[in-house]
Amino acid sequence: MKKDYKINYVFLMYDIADEESEAGKRRVNKVFKICKKYLTHHQKSVFRGEITPSRLLKLQKELKDVIDEELDFITIIKLKNKESFLEDTIGKKENDMFI
Amino acid sequence: MKKDYKINYVFLMYDIADEESEAGKRRVNKVFKICKKYLTHHQKSVFRGEITPSRLLKLQKELKDVIDEELDFITIIKLKNKESFLEDTIGKKENDMFI
Repeated sequence: MKKDYKINYVFLMYDIADEESEAGKRRVNKVFKICKKYLTHHQKSVFRGEITPSRLLKLQKELKDVIDEELDFITIIKLKNKESFLEDTIGKKENDMFI
Repeated sequence: MKKDYKINYVFLMYDIADEESEAGKRRVNKVFKICKKYLTHHQKSVFRGEITPSRLLKLQKELKDVIDEELDFITIIKLKNKESFLEDTIGKKENDMFI
């Protein structure tokens, strides 16, 4: 996808290391709260939604401030818009119990 | 994206409920092994890669046979090809420790 395409939709997937430790739990909660300000929680450690390029930069900066870049890993898949992908699901997405 | 576009690249994200229980562990391992046959493990519970429409159907059928559709949830984001998205990462993706 050419760089100059305006990004309007993203999928964000995060892996926070040692989630069971106190420090890991704190980072997961912080990441979750930050992501919820900008995107919709889709499934465990996956957020999605429409976002402007400028808000995406703000989101990325906030996330960088709270994760441990040596341990944690976040991938952001950037798409032109909601029409630039198709989607299948298997199983039932019940509630928001997955953090 | 119009339905008739041939899908050649996917992101697959899975949430297996009660991962700590024996039954949950078994399902996670089965899902992981099936996904590894078709795609590349990217980060915890996320696979990605190039795949033909027919192999994607096979993958989906195999996954349906092993998950508990009442408890587990899998999302497959289907894209035209590797050029139809951009990608940012934050943090370090070290090893394959995330299953």
